[in-house]
Amino acid sequence: MSRLRVHAFAVSIDGYGAGPRQSLDDPLGVGGRQLHEWVFPTRTFKRMHPPHLVEELSGQDEGTTGVDDDFARRGFEDIGAWIMGRNMFGPIRGAWPDDSWRGWWGNDPPYHVPVFVLTHHPRALIEMEGGTTFHFVTEGIEEALRRAKQAAGSKDVRVGGGVDTIRQYLRARLVDEMHLAISPVLLGTGEHLFSGVDLPALGYRVQAHATTAAAMHVVMARGAR
Amino acid sequence: MSRLRVHAFAVSIDGYGAGPRQSLDDPLGVGGRQLHEWVFPTRTFKRMHPPHLVEELSGQDEGTTGVDDDFARRGFEDIGAWIMGRNMFGPIRGAWPDDSWRGWWGNDPPYHVPVFVLTHHPRALIEMEGGTTFHFVTEGIEEALRRAKQAAGSKDVRVGGGVDTIRQYLRARLVDEMHLAISPVLLGTGEHLFSGVDLPALGYRVQAHATTAAAMHVVMARGAR
Repeated sequence: MSRLRVHAFAVSIDGYGAGPRQSLDDPLGVGGRQLHEWVFPTRTFKRMHPPHLVEELSGQDEGTTGVDDDFARRGFEDIGAWIMGRNMFGPIRGAWPDDSWRGWWGNDPPYHVPVFVLTHHPRALIEMEGGTTFHFVTEGIEEALRRAKQAAGSKDVRVGGGVDTIRQYLRARLVDEMHLAISPVLLGTGEHLFSGVDLPALGYRVQAHATTAAAMHVVMARGAR
Repeated sequence: MSRLRVHAFAVSIDGYGAGPRQSLDDPLGVGGRQLHEWVFPTRTFKRMHPPHLVEELSGQDEGTTGVDDDFARRGFEDIGAWIMGRNMFGPIRGAWPDDSWRGWWGNDPPYHVPVFVLTHHPRALIEMEGGTTFHFVTEGIEEALRRAKQAAGSKDVRVGGGVDTIRQYLRARLVDEMHLAISPVLLGTGEHLFSGVDLPALGYRVQAHATTAAAMHVVMARGAR
């Protein structure tokens, strides 16, 4: 049965999944980029992302293999559709001024499957290169999940983010499995993942963990022991 | 100059430093014990704690050496006095019913120096075996620190906990260095270390980190880069 999965979601030791004041220059909020330092050097990151992002965030090499890369790679395996919040799609708030914004990722985004973007503002779908199609869903998280599962068929659906979107799916007990990468950084302010979200009370248990020089990886699942 | 240090303070990935509903049976709150699994096997823990606690929490062996033990050991080096909150000293709330409660640690507590216990309820000092003396301070955190520094001389003062005591010293910008051990567990409820405490805004920066199979160790200091 198709599951809803969160992967490679980076959190600071004080619980923030993004910095404050997201903008075109700070897609991850101020200070948010340091949350993701563990993934930038990995082979999966370099293979999946367009050259302009790899060049900005990483090096020209092939990328690392190992535990960090394994966790990054699993997030792309057996995924038939993505769901993301509107802030993960872009920095624009309110009604869409025009159709020019097509995401942060260039013409060939790293998804290669249908992506369902939660928004309060309707917009026509966008077909990108490489199989990615952005669909804009205004009817809420359950309808987005229904459409994503339909698109995914027997494969799973991944919730990419951001923090608020993941919090909504967690509180609705709709996430089946979640992998967090705890990064050794302090943000102090921004988007808090856990505030008001009691994961054990929602049925989540830590299923596995692994540490690397760059991160503590923790996998939790509903109903796991 | 004598510094105020926090060491080996364990925190869940969702930010809790203790579970809820502390009691005689749950000194660390419900579920709180799993926060400390990283330290129980270490040589330092076994050497510093009384046999009845070691037997309950750990094994009969010599204890592990390595990164976890190094971090545990540093917390006892060059420490001339301790400060702790009243809940770290015991489960009793309100006025002291009598003088029978003498801490969780038996006749020879692991401190071996003066320990200043914050409380709203006066009580005569207690001299224990092995050099530990419990002093009860009713005049607040700054007076406790003044007396602890006086007792420590050229050595440092360690704040043992619990969460509320550490939060008070952090918010007053009085902690010079803090080592947290992030444990791969979820508590969901209990005593939250970071809530309302913006560490970067208070001047704290991550100075070093190290990961082991059991924990992510993070050292932060005020004014560090």
